[in-house]
Amino acid sequence: MSRKEMDARAREQLVHIAHGWYDQMRDGLVPFIRLPTRTKQNIEYNDESEVWTYGEKESMRSANSEKSAIHLLKMAYVIGFLKQQLAEGRSSTLRELYYISEGWKRAKFGAQDESNRLIEDLEILTDLQREAFHLRPEEDGAAIFGPLQIRESTQRGVREIHCQENVGEAGYPIPNNVDTLDFIDHDAKFVIAIETGGMYARLMENGFDEEYGAILVNLKGQPARSTRRVLRRLNEAMDLPVVVFTDGDPWSYRIYASVAYGSIKSAHMSERLATPQAQFIGVQPSDISDYNLPSDKLTEQDVAALKSELTDPRFATDYWREQINLQLEMKLKSEQQAFASRGLDFVTKEYLPNRLSEMGII
Amino acid sequence: MSRKEMDARAREQLVHIAHGWYDQMRDGLVPFIRLPTRTKQNIEYNDESEVWTYGEKESMRSANSEKSAIHLLKMAYVIGFLKQQLAEGRSSTLRELYYISEGWKRAKFGAQDESNRLIEDLEILTDLQREAFHLRPEEDGAAIFGPLQIRESTQRGVREIHCQENVGEAGYPIPNNVDTLDFIDHDAKFVIAIETGGMYARLMENGFDEEYGAILVNLKGQPARSTRRVLRRLNEAMDLPVVVFTDGDPWSYRIYASVAYGSIKSAHMSERLATPQAQFIGVQPSDISDYNLPSDKLTEQDVAALKSELTDPRFATDYWREQINLQLEMKLKSEQQAFASRGLDFVTKEYLPNRLSEMGII
Repeated sequence: MSRKEMDARAREQLVHIAHGWYDQMRDGLVPFIRLPTRTKQNIEYNDESEVWTYGEKESMRSANSEKSAIHLLKMAYVIGFLKQQLAEGRSSTLRELYYISEGWKRAKFGAQDESNRLIEDLEILTDLQREAFHLRPEEDGAAIFGPLQIRESTQRGVREIHCQENVGEAGYPIPNNVDTLDFIDHDAKFVIAIETGGMYARLMENGFDEEYGAILVNLKGQPARSTRRVLRRLNEAMDLPVVVFTDGDPWSYRIYASVAYGSIKSAHMSERLATPQAQFIGVQPSDISDYNLPSDKLTEQDVAALKSELTDPRFATDYWREQINLQLEMKLKSEQQAFASRGLDFVTKEYLPNRLSEMGII
Repeated sequence: MSRKEMDARAREQLVHIAHGWYDQMRDGLVPFIRLPTRTKQNIEYNDESEVWTYGEKESMRSANSEKSAIHLLKMAYVIGFLKQQLAEGRSSTLRELYYISEGWKRAKFGAQDESNRLIEDLEILTDLQREAFHLRPEEDGAAIFGPLQIRESTQRGVREIHCQENVGEAGYPIPNNVDTLDFIDHDAKFVIAIETGGMYARLMENGFDEEYGAILVNLKGQPARSTRRVLRRLNEAMDLPVVVFTDGDPWSYRIYASVAYGSIKSAHMSERLATPQAQFIGVQPSDISDYNLPSDKLTEQDVAALKSELTDPRFATDYWREQINLQLEMKLKSEQQAFASRGLDFVTKEYLPNRLSEMGII
C-alpha cells in the first residue's frame, strides 16, 4: 500500500466512528462506543497468534451522562483534527495533540495521560496504529539534521554522510566519540540546539532547516558531552552562531547554561565543551505572557531553582535577572511544544523568525 | 593528527603519570599526585576563554595513608589497562571498566561512581578527554547495526541505507514511524536485541555482526513500540530468528516478555508488536553461577518482582520457573556487561556462540 492509500484508509476508519454516531442518532439512539475492558482480567492468550490480547469483556460509553458525552465530544474533536492532519500530510507528537486541545473549550484535555488514552481507544476502534494517524511519541537520542556534510572515521572505515540527504527521519545520530568526526561542508547560517525530540521533529517537518539554513541538533534534555562538543566545534571551527531552544522553566535554563558555560562537574572540560557565544532563544518568561502560552503554575521546587539561579554567576546578566524576576512574579512556566496551541506552523513561521531577527542572526 | 598519533599521545600522557611516581620514589619521596580542588568554591571565570574552569586551589593525594595509597594503586591499574587498550586499538564503556577492576584485588572499585571519578582525575592530569583513552558512556536511542539494507520513505524523499556501510558508529536510528521502512535485503542469520548501549557497542566493536551474520538492535532499556515493531517484522517478513540479550534481573526479564508477548497497556497491538518466536538468550540466573559473574544481592523489590513473575502467565514455562526459582535461591543478579570481568572478548567469543548453538540458531 502506498503512503497515500494508507492515509486515505486511516481517514476513512476515523470518520467511520463519527458516522456510527450519526446513524445511532438517526435511529433514535443516544450515541455510544463499545471498547474492550482494558484490565488484567480481560487479557487472553491467543493460541493462533501466540500473543496476549484483550478478551471479550466490553464496556460501553454512552452520551447519556455528562462525563461520557464530553468524552465522545473529545473523541469527535480528535477525529476532526486527525482527519485534517491526514488530508494535509502533516504529523504531530502526542504532546502537541494535548496542547492543540487548548482551543477546544469543553473538549480540552486535563492532562496528556487522558489524550494518550483516547488515542489508544481510537487505535482499538479503527484497528490501526497511531502512526497511521501521523502521531509520534517524543524521540530520544541526540541527533543532527540539516545542511551539513560530515565524515566519521568508524572501525569499519570512513563514512561520509550528508545530514539531510543520507539519513532517515531520525537524523544523523551523534556518536560517543566525536573526535572521529570531521565537518566537511555546510550550507548553513546557524545552528539551533533543541531540548525536546518533539520540537526537533516539528522543525524538520516544517522544513525550517531548508528555509532558514539551520542545522537542527536534538539535545534530548540535558545534553551529553559529545553533543556539547559538537556544538562547540560547529561554533568554533565552522564559525556558525548557536542558539538554544528549550522549555521555559528553571531546569531548562540550566540546559542552556551547560551548553554556554559548562557545568561544575566537568569544569575541567569547559574549554572544550562550552560554547560561550551560544545564545538563548526561548521559551523566555516574557513569551509566556506575550504569546499567551498554555502554562503551568511554578512548583515550590521551581521557585527555589529560579531563586538559586539569581545568585548563580552564570545567570548574572541584566537579561536573565529581568526574565527570572518576571517569571517569579507571573508564577508560570511553559513548554516549547506549548506553541502548538497557536497552530503547528506558528513556531517556525512566527516565533523563531522573529526571535532570530531580534537577535541579529537572520 | 591521525587516529594513531592521537592514541600514541594519550598513551604517553598516561604513562607520564606513572613515571612521575617513579621519579618521586627515586628521589626518596612518598609518591603523590596533585589535583585542583573540585568544589564550587574553586570555580573561576576565565575572561579569555569565557568559560568557568577550576581555580588555583589544589589538593594533594600522597601514598602516606592507606586510603590514598590504594587510590594511587587503582590509578596505576587503570593506567595499565588503558595503555593496553590503546596499544590494541580497543575501547570500552565506563561500566565495563568498573567490571574489569573485579580482577584487581585491592584495587577493585567499590562502585561505578568511584571509577568514573578516577577517569575524570586522569582527564585533568593528562589534559585529554576520556574519549582519547577510548572510553565511552552508555549510548541511548534505539538503533540497528548489521548486514541489513533498508529503504525509508522520508518527507524529503526515499533513502536507501545499508546498516553497516552507510552509517556511523551509532548505527541506523529507528524512526518513530516504522511503517515508512522497507527491508530490502539482508545477509543475516539472526537478530540479537540488546538491552544496553554498552553491550551493543561491544558486539559492534568485536565484529560479532560480521562473524555470525547478526543484525544488532539496541533496545535501550524497555523498548519503544517502533523498536518492537521492527523486531516483529524482521522475524515475520524476513524469517529471521530473534534472540533477546538483557541483564539477569526480574526487570530485564520483563523487557524480554514485552518483546515476545507484548504488554497489558498495548495488548490491542500485540499482534503487530509482539514476536512470540523471540527467545531469551541471557543473562540467565544459571549463568551467574556457571560463569561466576560479578553480581549484586537481590533487593526486596527484586524478590517481589521475581515472585510476581512466577504467577505471570507469560513466564509459565518449565524453563522460566526453574531459572526464577534458582535466582530466588541464589539471591543474586548480574548485568550483561558483567561478562567484561572475564575479558572484553569473552561475551562474543565464548558466551554468545555457546548459547546460540545450544539454542540451535548457529
